[in-house]
Amino acid sequence: MTAVSSTTGSVTLVGGGPGAWDLITIRGQRALERADVILTDHLGPAHDLAQLCDTTAKEIIDVSKLPYGRQVTQEKTNELIVTHALAGRNVVRLKGGDPYVFGRGFEELTVCREHGIPCEVVPGVTSAVSVPAAAGIPVTQRGMVHSFTVVSGHLPPGHRNSLVNWRAVAQSGGTICVIMGVKNAPVIAEELLRVLPADTPAAVIQEGTTDAQRAVRCTLGTLGASMVEHGIGAPAVYVIGEVAGL
Amino acid sequence: MTAVSSTTGSVTLVGGGPGAWDLITIRGQRALERADVILTDHLGPAHDLAQLCDTTAKEIIDVSKLPYGRQVTQEKTNELIVTHALAGRNVVRLKGGDPYVFGRGFEELTVCREHGIPCEVVPGVTSAVSVPAAAGIPVTQRGMVHSFTVVSGHLPPGHRNSLVNWRAVAQSGGTICVIMGVKNAPVIAEELLRVLPADTPAAVIQEGTTDAQRAVRCTLGTLGASMVEHGIGAPAVYVIGEVAGL
Repeated sequence: MTAVSSTTGSVTLVGGGPGAWDLITIRGQRALERADVILTDHLGPAHDLAQLCDTTAKEIIDVSKLPYGRQVTQEKTNELIVTHALAGRNVVRLKGGDPYVFGRGFEELTVCREHGIPCEVVPGVTSAVSVPAAAGIPVTQRGMVHSFTVVSGHLPPGHRNSLVNWRAVAQSGGTICVIMGVKNAPVIAEELLRVLPADTPAAVIQEGTTDAQRAVRCTLGTLGASMVEHGIGAPAVYVIGEVAGL
Repeated sequence: MTAVSSTTGSVTLVGGGPGAWDLITIRGQRALERADVILTDHLGPAHDLAQLCDTTAKEIIDVSKLPYGRQVTQEKTNELIVTHALAGRNVVRLKGGDPYVFGRGFEELTVCREHGIPCEVVPGVTSAVSVPAAAGIPVTQRGMVHSFTVVSGHLPPGHRNSLVNWRAVAQSGGTICVIMGVKNAPVIAEELLRVLPADTPAAVIQEGTTDAQRAVRCTLGTLGASMVEHGIGAPAVYVIGEVAGL
């Protein structure tokens, strides 16, 4: 580990929650208040930062990875985190949802440790649970389902880098919540249909918890077509299982 | 639906987060400030309510379901929610974690609807993700694991009321997070060992995010014995998968 100079700042990886600005934690909000620099996604409360702290006194840097759009590379984000912290500033890396739910939080923590920079992780309300909730869907329900699986839909089933056994997920008996899976929804549904019946309830929620929230109830068999029909785009969560019919 | 009288109060089901008082959301904290009555668990920020609102002006009612201890029945809790709300009071039902992650939130929402009582659900930081995080364990990690399953360990594998296919969960390729599973840890580990190798990394975290937090790193093969050896008691989360070795 590199020696820490007396002027080293700090890094806080903050889970900003699903979108609505007041679904960040108190600890997360206080970290934003103390920050000199905020490196932010386009997710979570990024568009309402002024509700959470005095933004005029801070440097706000957009490091969004827009789906299928402009990308700030992870290497560039890591470099910004380290550079600002080593310059003695308090850095907040604000993320949508929770830093450890497909948020690359551990990668950024590791980079900080490698540079001897103190780094704290503040958990957030994950979109995988709270976005279905915002559409009235509980991921668990006593007597109906006692488990749920949260899956990244970034890679299609069968992709050589896929680490998900989709058939086992379908066989688990639990609710399935897919995030980052808009593009691959048709092939994911097709794979799940090898195990689950076509009339399994499903729902898709775009921009959940924000003013722009849209929710579509459907079935596993109609999931892909429903998303096209309603023009669902990222960010969206889809949930598959009996709870989606409640 | 019953007609709502002009004096009907309201109910807010608030996810209090994993334990530390400042891991509640801003929305949840504001609901506590507005509450006339708070029905609370022993989980989440229940012991630090005075940090979150002026408790002297409120009625605080303990409706804990202590594991293997004193139990307030769900029926009694429902009755208290309804009685206070119909008396025109603003009721907060404060829960540990998230109301919809094994929190019986939807049952309480349904009871409110049946009585024509306005009911809002405020999501919380789930213990299933944030408690491992507090011990340095991310539930997902790029290139290592792209899914995680959250399971209630309340019922042992093979129990006639069990709704979980534990072998499929083990085959999913994802991280496994078990909550409410202290008592059944040995039989759950035994079932998972039918699929996963004994040296699969595991960790147990008791009272995560609080001052009393204790964490034990072990393997799936030693999980049950480690919990006994270290005297792990509820509330605890255990996490099984490669991330537990990070």
